Amino acid sequence: MNTKPLRVLIHGASGRMGQALLRLAAGAPETWQVVAAVTGRSPAQRVVDGVPFFAGGELAGVPEFDVAVDFSLPEGFDPVLALCVARRRALVSGTTGLAADQRAALESAAATIPVLWASNFSVGVAVLDELVERAARALPGWDCDIVESHHVHKKDAPSGTALTLGESAGRGGAQARYASLRAGDIVGEHVVQFAGQGERIELVHRATSRDIFARGALQAATRLAGRDPGLHTMRGLLFGLD
Amino acid sequence: MNTKPLRVLIHGASGRMGQALLRLAAGAPETWQVVAAVTGRSPAQRVVDGVPFFAGGELAGVPEFDVAVDFSLPEGFDPVLALCVARRRALVSGTTGLAADQRAALESAAATIPVLWASNFSVGVAVLDELVERAARALPGWDCDIVESHHVHKKDAPSGTALTLGESAGRGGAQARYASLRAGDIVGEHVVQFAGQGERIELVHRATSRDIFARGALQAATRLAGRDPGLHTMRGLLFGLD
Amino acid sequence: MNTKPLRVLIHGASGRMGQALLRLAAGAPETWQVVAAVTGRSPAQRVVDGVPFFAGGELAGVPEFDVAVDFSLPEGFDPVLALCVARRRALVSGTTGLAADQRAALESAAATIPVLWASNFSVGVAVLDELVERAARALPGWDCDIVESHHVHKKDAPSGTALTLGESAGRGGAQARYASLRAGDIVGEHVVQFAGQGERIELVHRATSRDIFARGALQAATRLAGRDPGLHTMRGLLFGLD
Amino acid sequence: MNTKPLRVLIHGASGRMGQALLRLAAGAPETWQVVAAVTGRSPAQRVVDGVPFFAGGELAGVPEFDVAVDFSLPEGFDPVLALCVARRRALVSGTTGLAADQRAALESAAATIPVLWASNFSVGVAVLDELVERAARALPGWDCDIVESHHVHKKDAPSGTALTLGESAGRGGAQARYASLRAGDIVGEHVVQFAGQGERIELVHRATSRDIFARGALQAATRLAGRDPGLHTMRGLLFGLD
Repeated sequence: MNTKPLRVLIHGASGRMGQALLRLAAGAPETWQVVAAVTGRSPAQRVVDGVPFFAGGELAGVPEFDVAVDFSLPEGFDPVLALCVARRRALVSGTTGLAADQRAALESAAATIPVLWASNFSVGVAVLDELVERAARALPGWDCDIVESHHVHKKDAPSGTALTLGESAGRGGAQARYASLRAGDIVGEHVVQFAGQGERIELVHRATSRDIFARGALQAATRLAGRDPGLHTMRGLLFGLD
Repeated sequence: MNTKPLRVLIHGASGRMGQALLRLAAGAPETWQVVAAVTGRSPAQRVVDGVPFFAGGELAGVPEFDVAVDFSLPEGFDPVLALCVARRRALVSGTTGLAADQRAALESAAATIPVLWASNFSVGVAVLDELVERAARALPGWDCDIVESHHVHKKDAPSGTALTLGESAGRGGAQARYASLRAGDIVGEHVVQFAGQGERIELVHRATSRDIFARGALQAATRLAGRDPGLHTMRGLLFGLD
Repeated sequence: MNTKPLRVLIHGASGRMGQALLRLAAGAPETWQVVAAVTGRSPAQRVVDGVPFFAGGELAGVPEFDVAVDFSLPEGFDPVLALCVARRRALVSGTTGLAADQRAALESAAATIPVLWASNFSVGVAVLDELVERAARALPGWDCDIVESHHVHKKDAPSGTALTLGESAGRGGAQARYASLRAGDIVGEHVVQFAGQGERIELVHRATSRDIFARGALQAATRLAGRDPGLHTMRGLLFGLD
Repeated sequence: MNTKPLRVLIHGASGRMGQALLRLAAGAPETWQVVAAVTGRSPAQRVVDGVPFFAGGELAGVPEFDVAVDFSLPEGFDPVLALCVARRRALVSGTTGLAADQRAALESAAATIPVLWASNFSVGVAVLDELVERAARALPGWDCDIVESHHVHKKDAPSGTALTLGESAGRGGAQARYASLRAGDIVGEHVVQFAGQGERIELVHRATSRDIFARGALQAATRLAGRDPGLHTMRGLLFGLD
C-alpha cells in the first residue's frame, strides 16, 4: 500500500466523467487526492469541497501532481499533454475525437512520459477482453458467439465493446457472431460463449453502474504513475505486460 | 401413488421416439408397463425384453391397455385412433403431418375419449410456456426478448419452441423479439427475458437430453389416463386447467 | 389509459422511500400527482417542487386524494389509516414493525377500503413468487434450489425474499434448498432452479436499482385505487386474483 | 493439419473411459488411429471394429504407436510406462490411485519422454482454470465465489474441480468461497464469479456429456506427441506454456 494518496489533476472537471471522477476520488481520500480540477471556462467557484478549480487557460499555475486524468474535448487536449510533458507526469486520457496530429503528439509524448489512452476504462471489460483472446487461442474449432444487452436508448448495435471483444476473439483465431438485445435500462452486459462438443464456456461481464468508467480511470492512474514512459493499455496495466 | 403400473401401448415402436419410449418405460416398470409395441411392418422379433410386438395390421389383437402412445406416420394414425375409440382408451399422439380430415377425426374422438396431441412433449417447455404467458400478463410495458440456442445442425431459426413461447408472450400482451444462436452440440436452450426499469426477470429452459420428449409423453400418458374425454394439452395436464 | 393522473398522498415523505416516491412521481406527472407529502415533524418548506408539505399533525387538512402511500413509522400509522377510512380512500403501506393491534386495525379497515400491506414492493419479485409456486406445482419430483446474491454488507442469509420464494415453492410441493452469496455491491439477485431429468428451468430476478420498491409501490397504488375493499396482495393485484 | 492420423495405444480399453476413447477415436479416423487396445485380462475378441486387442501381459508385442493413452488401474501402470520409455513414445495417463513410487517413476520417465498426467481431461475446465487465475491476478479486491452444480448422486462437495479452480484463484490472490448444488442429472457446471463495485465477471463451464474427458485426453495426446520430454499439464498444452 502507498502511504500517500496519488495526487491527481482532473482535466475536464465539469463534464459527466469529470464529475464522477471528483465524486469517487472524494470518497477515497486515502487513495486519491485531487490537487486541481480544470474546467474549460472560468470555474463558478474557486474551491469546491476542498478541491481548487482552475480555468483551462490557467494550467501553468496548477500545483504539483502525479497523474493528469483528462476527459475533455479535443480543443483542450494539447495544453494538458504539454503540461504533462513539461512536468514529466503521467497522463490518462479518454478524450474522444482527437485529430491525427493530436494522436501523433500523444505518441511522441510517450517517449518521455507514461501515457494511457483508452475508449473504455472499465476494469472488468479489459479483463474480459484479455480472457476472450486467451480462450479463443486455446479452443480452436469451438464456436464463438457474443450476446450483448443494453438499454433501449442505445442506438448502435453491436456495441463497440462487443466489436472489441470480437476482434480479440479473432486474434485468437475464432470468428465471433453477434446478437444484440435492447431492453429496459440495462447498463451493459456482454456474454462471450465458446461452444465445443459436450461442453461450453461462457465469459460474462455485467455492468450495473456507469461509475465503473471513472473508477477504472482512477485505478489506471494509480497503476500508470510508477511506470516507464510509453504508450500503455488497460490490458497491459492490468496484466502486467507493459 | 397408483399401486399398479399404467398399461401402455406404444404405436410406432421402431422409430427414434418409439425406441426411447421403450427404453424409458423399461427403466421404470413400477410406473409404466408396455403391454404392446406396434411397428409398421412385421416385427423382426415377437417379444423383445418381455414386450410383445405387433405389426400395424394386427392392432385388433393387442391386449388390454390404458393409454396408447403414438409416434408414427400419418398413414398409421387412423387405425390407432379407431382402436382407442373402440376400446374407450386414452390416446397420446405426437405424429406430425396429419391431414385435415385426420385432425377432424381426432377432435371427434375427443367426444368419447381423452386425447392429447402435441408437437413438443417436454414437461419443462410446457411449464415455461405457461409461465411466460403469466409473466407477460403481469408485466405490461416490460421489454420481452427470447434468446434460443441450438446445435449447429439446426437449420430453422427461430426454433419452433421459441415461436410458441413468443405467441404465449403475445397472448399476455408482450411483443417478443428473437435472437438465435447455433453453436456446438447444444440440445436446446430458451431464455425469455422481461426487462423493466431497475429489474429484470429471466425464464430459462435448458435441455441436455433428447429423452425429455419421450419421458414427457409417458408422464402425459399417466396424467391423461384418468381424465374426462376431450382435447387436452400439455399445459392443461400440468397445470390442472383441463 | 386514465386521462387524469392518480392523486397520491405520500405519508413518510422525509424517509428514504418517501424521497424516492416523490422523485419517481415527479418524473411521471401524467400518471401520478402528489397532492400532499406528509412528514413526521413540521416540514422545513411548505411547498417543494410544487408539492404541498404537511406535518403529521395536520392530516385532517390535506386535500382530496385517491390513494395514500405510507412508508413511515409505527407511531405514524394509526392517523393515516384513520384518514383513509374517513375519506374512503385506498391505502398502500410498507411500514414495518406494526404492533398486533395495528395489524388488527388494518384488517378491520379492509372491510371498508382497499388495503395493501407488503414487505417487498418489487413488481418483479412478486411475479417471480407467483411463477415459482406454479412451477413447483407442475413439476413434482424436480429438485428445487434457490441461489441469492447480495452486496457484502447484507447480514442476514438467506434473504427474506429467498425465504418467501422457498415458501411459495413449498406451497407448490417442492422443498427448496438455499445458497447465499455476498459479493461486491450486488443490489439483489434470486435464482430459483428446478432440475429434472435431462432438463432444467431457471427463474431469475435481477434488481439493479433500489428504486424498484418505490416504483412498485406507486404502480400498486394505481392498481389498488379501483379495487373493492379488502386486504390485497402484490401477487393478487398483478395477477388479477383479488 | 497432419496428413496422417495419430497412432494411439489405448491402455485400459475395457473400462468406461477406455470404451469412450475407442468410440470417439473410431468417429474421427482421419485424426486418431487406434493401433492397439489393451485390456487387463485376455480380451474376449482379438479384433473389434478393426482394432487389434491385447492382454496386459502382451504389451511387448503391440505395434508401433505415437502416444499411449492410459486409463487403467495402478497395477497396470508400471508396464505401460516402461513400454513408452522403451519405445520413446509419449504417455497420457489419467489412472488414479498411483503409489508414491509410481509417481516418482513417472517423473523420472519425463526426462526421456513427454508425459501428461491429469485428474481431469476436460479441455474447457483446463481453459477455465487458466482464466480464473488470470482474472484473479488482475482483479485485486474483487470478491470471488464459486458455485458448482452436479447430479444428486455426487457425494463430495465442493467438487474436486471447484477446489482446483479455487486454488487457481488463490494463486491469483483471491480467496474463493464455495456453494454446491446437487440437483437432477446435471453432468457438471462451475461458475466462478468476480464481483467488484458496479461490475461483475462470471466465468462459466457447462458440461453436458461425460465424453468430454475422453475427447480431451485424445486431443491432449495429439498436442503431446510432438513435444519435448517433460512433465506436461493440460493448461500448459492448451496455452503453449510448456
